[in-house]
Amino acid sequence: MTKKLLLLSNSTNFGEEYLFYARQQIQNFLGSSVKRVLFIPFAGVTSNYDEYTAKVGKVFQDIGYAIDAIHVGENYRESVKKAEAIVVGGGNTFHLVHWLHKTGIIETIREKVNNGTPYIGWSAGSNVASPTLKTTNDMPIIEPVSFNALNLVPFQINPHYTDAVILNHNGETREQRIREFLVVNSDVYVVGLQEGTMLNIEGESMKLIGDKPMRLLKFGEPLVEYDSNANLDFILKS
Amino acid sequence: MTKKLLLLSNSTNFGEEYLFYARQQIQNFLGSSVKRVLFIPFAGVTSNYDEYTAKVGKVFQDIGYAIDAIHVGENYRESVKKAEAIVVGGGNTFHLVHWLHKTGIIETIREKVNNGTPYIGWSAGSNVASPTLKTTNDMPIIEPVSFNALNLVPFQINPHYTDAVILNHNGETREQRIREFLVVNSDVYVVGLQEGTMLNIEGESMKLIGDKPMRLLKFGEPLVEYDSNANLDFILKS
Repeated sequence: MTKKLLLLSNSTNFGEEYLFYARQQIQNFLGSSVKRVLFIPFAGVTSNYDEYTAKVGKVFQDIGYAIDAIHVGENYRESVKKAEAIVVGGGNTFHLVHWLHKTGIIETIREKVNNGTPYIGWSAGSNVASPTLKTTNDMPIIEPVSFNALNLVPFQINPHYTDAVILNHNGETREQRIREFLVVNSDVYVVGLQEGTMLNIEGESMKLIGDKPMRLLKFGEPLVEYDSNANLDFILKS
Repeated sequence: MTKKLLLLSNSTNFGEEYLFYARQQIQNFLGSSVKRVLFIPFAGVTSNYDEYTAKVGKVFQDIGYAIDAIHVGENYRESVKKAEAIVVGGGNTFHLVHWLHKTGIIETIREKVNNGTPYIGWSAGSNVASPTLKTTNDMPIIEPVSFNALNLVPFQINPHYTDAVILNHNGETREQRIREFLVVNSDVYVVGLQEGTMLNIEGESMKLIGDKPMRLLKFGEPLVEYDSNANLDFILKS
């Protein structure tokens, strides 16, 4: 079956309701054959998994999908195997990757999604669709057994990509951070996804959705912008 | 001998010359008995170690200290053992920690500094004086064998601490990121060091240097500010 992913930069645009900008796209993506989604709240740290699931569940119910949460099931791998669609929320990427490994569902999710179960992620949940977590913006609050992630796409995603910097402050720009990544990982593409945008992957085809261009970074090459009209299939073959 | 550390938030304040704000303090700290320092450039990623050493060497020579770089010596551990003072520069904390472990000098530095060899660090170089790298702001561009760091102080340092955020952007504030750390590491103090400030530790005594207050964060407690008049010795006993 065709691999299907919807990878959002962020849950919520500044000043909007939770997941508001993505609701219509999620509906288009899941369609009417999916009735229930399985939610993975492992990126959540400061709110507990039940609260997080309730918040996300409200949105999905509004647009016609029931929600189950992985953490309430008895057998995590069985829950993944039975899922009609998998939804991975944002939060802290290290926490998410730690628990994906710890619970042993990382391979099960990979296999399911590679076999055609739709995958939706935002922020940390998009980041982990990459081969590794190495382009996260998050603080490494917990040491995962490995930096390896779901590897559902062959490139690295940097969610919340921005050119903006804090005034009179000497932190690196996002591009500088990604350039550091590329020095040590020179064979990988990095996709910088600005807030309010998402990638839609269906089999061999990839498109950007949203009105801010995507940034593509590769070692030794200048940054290139692609908008929602661009054919991005070549990045899937990288 | 008395343990001596000078831990700077950053190398350079916005708009100033390299390491400018810290020159006088470095001189006060090292005094006249130290003639040469050993520089560890392993946090450097986008410039090579020779260039990085030359840039730092110029500053130290200006204030009267010769510089040797760890990477040009034949035996890294011997270089550390012979050092009169150890200087660890900023850059990418994951890269630094990776190479501290990989070269096997992490324990040698720890032992040397615990026995009284002065230690100067900035940014990543201050971060790694903590028990772990878990409060770094850097991108995890390389997977170190362990998140454990030099453990020269019993608390976590967050360098480049700031309350500022990027306008109309949904990334977490620095305090929110540290609060996430505290949920998973509830027994550790985190010191947020604003740019232009540094910690001076001599044995059992700790002081802040600089005109912006330090932020102390602990799980379940409100943030507390301390200025350069405060006695911070209790944090060393945490």
